[in-house]
Amino acid sequence: MTSRLIDCLSTTDALAAVFDDRSVIDAMRRFEVALARAAARAGAIPEGAVRHIDAAAAQATCDAAAIARAARLSATPAIPYVKALRDAVRAVDEESASFVHWGATSQDVIDTAMVLLLKRARPIVAADHERIDRALRTLSDRHAGTIMLGRTLLQPATIITFGLKVAGWLAAIDRAWRRLDAAWNEVLVLQLGGAAGTRAALGAEARAIVGELAGELGLAAAPPWHTDRDRLGAFVAALGLYAAALAKAAGDIALLMQAEVGEAAERGGGSSAMPQKRNPSSCTVVLAAATRAPHLVSAFLSGIPQEHERAAGGLQAEWPTVAGAVQTAGSAADAFAQAIEGLAVDEARMRANIDATLGLAFAEQAVVTIGRYIGMENARAAVERAVQQTRSTGRRLGDVIRDVPEIAAQVPDHEMAGIDQPVAGLGEAEALRQDLLAGSRPRT
Amino acid sequence: MTSRLIDCLSTTDALAAVFDDRSVIDAMRRFEVALARAAARAGAIPEGAVRHIDAAAAQATCDAAAIARAARLSATPAIPYVKALRDAVRAVDEESASFVHWGATSQDVIDTAMVLLLKRARPIVAADHERIDRALRTLSDRHAGTIMLGRTLLQPATIITFGLKVAGWLAAIDRAWRRLDAAWNEVLVLQLGGAAGTRAALGAEARAIVGELAGELGLAAAPPWHTDRDRLGAFVAALGLYAAALAKAAGDIALLMQAEVGEAAERGGGSSAMPQKRNPSSCTVVLAAATRAPHLVSAFLSGIPQEHERAAGGLQAEWPTVAGAVQTAGSAADAFAQAIEGLAVDEARMRANIDATLGLAFAEQAVVTIGRYIGMENARAAVERAVQQTRSTGRRLGDVIRDVPEIAAQVPDHEMAGIDQPVAGLGEAEALRQDLLAGSRPRT
Amino acid sequence: MTSRLIDCLSTTDALAAVFDDRSVIDAMRRFEVALARAAARAGAIPEGAVRHIDAAAAQATCDAAAIARAARLSATPAIPYVKALRDAVRAVDEESASFVHWGATSQDVIDTAMVLLLKRARPIVAADHERIDRALRTLSDRHAGTIMLGRTLLQPATIITFGLKVAGWLAAIDRAWRRLDAAWNEVLVLQLGGAAGTRAALGAEARAIVGELAGELGLAAAPPWHTDRDRLGAFVAALGLYAAALAKAAGDIALLMQAEVGEAAERGGGSSAMPQKRNPSSCTVVLAAATRAPHLVSAFLSGIPQEHERAAGGLQAEWPTVAGAVQTAGSAADAFAQAIEGLAVDEARMRANIDATLGLAFAEQAVVTIGRYIGMENARAAVERAVQQTRSTGRRLGDVIRDVPEIAAQVPDHEMAGIDQPVAGLGEAEALRQDLLAGSRPRT
Amino acid sequence: MTSRLIDCLSTTDALAAVFDDRSVIDAMRRFEVALARAAARAGAIPEGAVRHIDAAAAQATCDAAAIARAARLSATPAIPYVKALRDAVRAVDEESASFVHWGATSQDVIDTAMVLLLKRARPIVAADHERIDRALRTLSDRHAGTIMLGRTLLQPATIITFGLKVAGWLAAIDRAWRRLDAAWNEVLVLQLGGAAGTRAALGAEARAIVGELAGELGLAAAPPWHTDRDRLGAFVAALGLYAAALAKAAGDIALLMQAEVGEAAERGGGSSAMPQKRNPSSCTVVLAAATRAPHLVSAFLSGIPQEHERAAGGLQAEWPTVAGAVQTAGSAADAFAQAIEGLAVDEARMRANIDATLGLAFAEQAVVTIGRYIGMENARAAVERAVQQTRSTGRRLGDVIRDVPEIAAQVPDHEMAGIDQPVAGLGEAEALRQDLLAGSRPRT
Repeated sequence: MTSRLIDCLSTTDALAAVFDDRSVIDAMRRFEVALARAAARAGAIPEGAVRHIDAAAAQATCDAAAIARAARLSATPAIPYVKALRDAVRAVDEESASFVHWGATSQDVIDTAMVLLLKRARPIVAADHERIDRALRTLSDRHAGTIMLGRTLLQPATIITFGLKVAGWLAAIDRAWRRLDAAWNEVLVLQLGGAAGTRAALGAEARAIVGELAGELGLAAAPPWHTDRDRLGAFVAALGLYAAALAKAAGDIALLMQAEVGEAAERGGGSSAMPQKRNPSSCTVVLAAATRAPHLVSAFLSGIPQEHERAAGGLQAEWPTVAGAVQTAGSAADAFAQAIEGLAVDEARMRANIDATLGLAFAEQAVVTIGRYIGMENARAAVERAVQQTRSTGRRLGDVIRDVPEIAAQVPDHEMAGIDQPVAGLGEAEALRQDLLAGSRPRT
Repeated sequence: MTSRLIDCLSTTDALAAVFDDRSVIDAMRRFEVALARAAARAGAIPEGAVRHIDAAAAQATCDAAAIARAARLSATPAIPYVKALRDAVRAVDEESASFVHWGATSQDVIDTAMVLLLKRARPIVAADHERIDRALRTLSDRHAGTIMLGRTLLQPATIITFGLKVAGWLAAIDRAWRRLDAAWNEVLVLQLGGAAGTRAALGAEARAIVGELAGELGLAAAPPWHTDRDRLGAFVAALGLYAAALAKAAGDIALLMQAEVGEAAERGGGSSAMPQKRNPSSCTVVLAAATRAPHLVSAFLSGIPQEHERAAGGLQAEWPTVAGAVQTAGSAADAFAQAIEGLAVDEARMRANIDATLGLAFAEQAVVTIGRYIGMENARAAVERAVQQTRSTGRRLGDVIRDVPEIAAQVPDHEMAGIDQPVAGLGEAEALRQDLLAGSRPRT
Repeated sequence: MTSRLIDCLSTTDALAAVFDDRSVIDAMRRFEVALARAAARAGAIPEGAVRHIDAAAAQATCDAAAIARAARLSATPAIPYVKALRDAVRAVDEESASFVHWGATSQDVIDTAMVLLLKRARPIVAADHERIDRALRTLSDRHAGTIMLGRTLLQPATIITFGLKVAGWLAAIDRAWRRLDAAWNEVLVLQLGGAAGTRAALGAEARAIVGELAGELGLAAAPPWHTDRDRLGAFVAALGLYAAALAKAAGDIALLMQAEVGEAAERGGGSSAMPQKRNPSSCTVVLAAATRAPHLVSAFLSGIPQEHERAAGGLQAEWPTVAGAVQTAGSAADAFAQAIEGLAVDEARMRANIDATLGLAFAEQAVVTIGRYIGMENARAAVERAVQQTRSTGRRLGDVIRDVPEIAAQVPDHEMAGIDQPVAGLGEAEALRQDLLAGSRPRT
Repeated sequence: MTSRLIDCLSTTDALAAVFDDRSVIDAMRRFEVALARAAARAGAIPEGAVRHIDAAAAQATCDAAAIARAARLSATPAIPYVKALRDAVRAVDEESASFVHWGATSQDVIDTAMVLLLKRARPIVAADHERIDRALRTLSDRHAGTIMLGRTLLQPATIITFGLKVAGWLAAIDRAWRRLDAAWNEVLVLQLGGAAGTRAALGAEARAIVGELAGELGLAAAPPWHTDRDRLGAFVAALGLYAAALAKAAGDIALLMQAEVGEAAERGGGSSAMPQKRNPSSCTVVLAAATRAPHLVSAFLSGIPQEHERAAGGLQAEWPTVAGAVQTAGSAADAFAQAIEGLAVDEARMRANIDATLGLAFAEQAVVTIGRYIGMENARAAVERAVQQTRSTGRRLGDVIRDVPEIAAQVPDHEMAGIDQPVAGLGEAEALRQDLLAGSRPRT
């Protein structure tokens, strides 16, 4: 019963593989085998049992559908999985079956298995983030001097550089990545607490087993965290923030790619009906992620207040949310890398769109310049009148202002010439761009 | 790449099958074949093409993983699916390939396919709802006279009947079902609008084709609704409300099943570590649904404001949300039916828990009764003093009150005897129970 | 301690007044006075008490801040309010104080007060909806024949009419309103259940009192619904759906108002820095509502599963959510009415934007037309080649196609002339427009 | 128009004051006055203007309601505020009016004002966190040896100590606080970018002004972050995680306080109807916060992808969300401190509840102990049989097991005696408790 289509825009092949049945079962298997090994090393169970458990676990053909079905009766897939494993071991060596799942509780399997999946997912998302970081840095440098309209509330505001805009995207995405990276570090923690979190069934060897098991699985050791879901919550929130940062940039690109704007374009995809279509398909996939991601975050947070030593509800809601959050954010990273690596930028169109404002994008600049000579209040009023005239006549704003005798009389000619020249209007754009690149994560 | 385990507590076998790859492809196939048939009937395409399309579609072995991969490039699985279908038809009959996907756009396939899946899911959830309705009705009738503690803020309040409590669950669940049922009616609408919703490519036969196609697929005909997602939104919201109504009852059962309360118990599941455990497993599955469902609702609602004639983001986020909402609510219905059909009720324990309050659950009743003789304000003050005495001495509240000379002097003996008798304390419980059952959906 | 600024874009003066302290206290007062009156009519309490309670309640100057502070100790503002009221009555007439809050519980006050506020809010939102309905209907009729680009994924698709686009907005908004209107009907229900929902403390007169009280307050009578929050949940969800439908249209307008598109403009607001700015301010307020509304819906839904006969948490979270949802949706309606009533439409710009595509918006139409003569597959391939040529040379698509000898040879001249004429490309636009207007709510 | 009641369970007096109109206006005022001062220091505007602006700003009686009303026309309260301020300055000194809002844009005021409010709110929440940290630490130490039932899925599992349970609460709350504290550090950043984020209107003095202004306001300087909302997003998420960590503990207390469990009790609040009620009122207020907080997080995250250089919608939705999140989390902290400082613990009842399980809470311990002698599989089977016998006969589990001859024959007497003794069943409880306390934030 394959199931790739419903989620096809919300995951990638690589991430879907991390969370598919084979991978989930493999993670549970790795926990149980490593637990046996750790227990044997600590002297709690016989060495021989490890070999039998390892062999049986490797060979056992687990019926994921059957486990899924049985899971509904005990509210966890761990119980049917452990039962299947124990049966497989028993078939090989009766006594070794006793040592399966040694001192552990079902949640220990479930949680550690999920953590192992998160570990597997990490380099996949990180690789896409590296692509994004590299591509944005290059793009920003290349367009350090490319002038374009800054837009507020979707209207032309003043001019900026495309390099600055891209550096802003990068800085936010890199901050989000650093938060996510830190959360990923925090979340890779072994779960091993036994029935109610005291490790009582692990006996005197508890601490040794925890150390060995953590080492074996490459996870951090810590006190059991059965009903302390804050690390996972912080991780899911960081995924949501990362997807949102990508979506800010993807949304800008989709807007810039509108035929009427035409300043940038991703390679894009076509249409089933219209031969001419070139769609912002990759940005669309990123934006779809941004639609879902916040709700995966709140779904996880809503389930955090879990009852006593193991929850009835909140815990059992987590898996689809965590897996969904990783895949959604990862899907966004993959698609955004695709969009940004193939981004075409039309500098001429950027210039043309400024020109099309008839100089209105320089209105603030004009106020500031002539305000130094005639006072800001007067300047503002004069420019406001000139804006009306530009709107009604179609004459360029700079020309209208230069024709106002009272202004021309007080403002020196070279200043008057500059009121609609981009150079003056860029302010700190380049310095800020460099600050943003320097402050964001360096390539390693 | 099967994928059942991550979602195993959030779906059922039957509902997972509705949304798996085979089913999704089949729904897209049904749309395309029925469209060809409708177009042929309307005289827009040759009859012969239908046969070829039908045959090729039936035989085409669609590679779901390949479609999923390609979908990311065009931001829709419809484009690679239609391409695969057209290729398959072309292999059979070159000319007929022209008539594949006649006048339709990718969203027409996507939306109608999802609607067909929702149609398939409906009887599955309805059957579980019928089980729930029947079981709750029986349970309420059986316990019309079973007295138990009413509890507010998790503390004993006054007495109620278990029959009334169950009738309250039923009434809310049935109201939620009626809303969901109505939303399900509204959502089963054909999508066929062509590139931008004018059906221009369908030519003069547009209306006829729409009528035929809707009839063929058993869906309602309506104007295209490409960026009008309100019907789907209302449907997802109704699923969320239904899951929440089930969770209210499931939560109560889980609380009643606490060992320290012990008034009701579902059959329950065990533990991987503790031989004695009997868990509210089915209620837990319901509560897990209630943790996720609200967020699926808000995820859908967040995506409703879709741009112009087809969205870039909101639309592409919908499939996992809609499929998730149906499966989550359906999983809750299945699990709640399981819980309620096997519910054991311990009437003696209900009585014992009332007794254990030392009559404090009758405090309000005592105030009301003696208030008629000594004034409400005096009564309240007197009972408050008596409550303190009961708490400090462990004597039953009724006895403490009956020993207060000023009260005994003014309140007739038969009234004094009744201040801690359940009969007087039930008020309208039975009448309300019958109102609730009568008002809720009748068995059909 | 006024508090209007934080929420200033999320409410209106009229709706803020509905939920301010005076109004909340007034609603609690109305409940308590009407309860006394109903109880007196039913013979449960003396007539004289009503007069004292009414007078004391009217004169009592309630300190909202003090009640708010005290509410945190009992987890409800009802307890300090009832205490203040009882004290005020006692000051006037000792005995009448006994009859304050007769047989009721704190949640009865809280819930009925909120329902009374919802009743007050209804005509305010309805009036804005009427404005919207009227303005959209007029706008659609006026622009029945105004041709513009349909846009999918923010790219030019094929042509549509602005009248059809507006009719689509209207139909969705009206469907959403009808759902909201129905939910508003359902939610105006009296709450009166007493301590645990049996009305035991109301004694034999319970049913009579409920009937009188419901009549007095203009609310429906029903069994107590202390932990059955589905009606409120359905109401909040309907508010969310309504806000989303408004936001779809507001988002389209904001996009059409981009300087580079320039097809429509609301009156708009200015900037604190830039004299030339004309912002889609009203649409922005609508879009802000759409950002928040879905989360208010999920917040309410998350709180629905409430424990036993009164919740510890879910209930106490409701007030800000319900009040926020009404105000957010109402703020959106007010702002959207403002936007749509002042909407300027630039038909020439709509035509110019079509022209600027060099005929690419007619690509599908060309395929369909010439496909009838040379086969659809050939036509699609030919038009795809022509699209490339248009892109590289800047020649109009129709001209490129008409110059292809193989096509010119097979397609009649009058058909060739029509491949880039809007008339043929509008399909059912006008019929669908009329269907949408007819199907949506008629003006009354 | 005071408005405290709707939110009374979602804020505290102190936090409501931070976000009330006076405080908001004061924050905007502080920004504008400090900006003038910084600009003057940098030599951009005359020193004299600062005095006039400062004086006028201090005296101006701002009409919050009027600003709120006007804000809807420009989609920001900054524009009417700046206009009012400029008018006030003009009345004092015409020329100085020119220098009001020097080089800034409306979002600079809005964002910096909100950051100043967040700075004001910090010590209020921190003080409550300190109370919580202290009280939990003391409680955990006091109950290091207090044995109680561990409960999983709301059922008795094995024994734990109350000290360990409390240490788990503390560790999670302290981790959440550290994340919040770090996010609070990150978010206290000045916003000053001018119209489109280049600071062009600040001229050559831009960098100097930013440095002066940041210093003046006690905020960090950074590049403008107009559409980079990730820091605020991370802050709101951290608030949500903190509220959730508090709610986990509050939920446990509310469950322990059930009359039928009776192991712990907060001071609690009463009822308007029932004299005997003692409710977990403070925990209820915490749980109400946990119901709302996740949705405030997702509301913020949904608005993060903001268009170009200033958003139309996402930005304007933020204020109620951020203010709501701070107040909700702060309300939870205040209420939880109240709950935990007054917590009564009933050790006898904890012991009695263990006893009431008839030893079933020792079932796993029994398996582990006797398993060492008869093999784990045999032990598990034997104990399962014994559990059945205990359930049907009511005999204690330990006694039943000790009476099984095959077991008695193989297991030494002293081991047999220990199978239901708590000492052996606590495992690492105390070591873990100390780890948790040591790992969590030390008192300072």
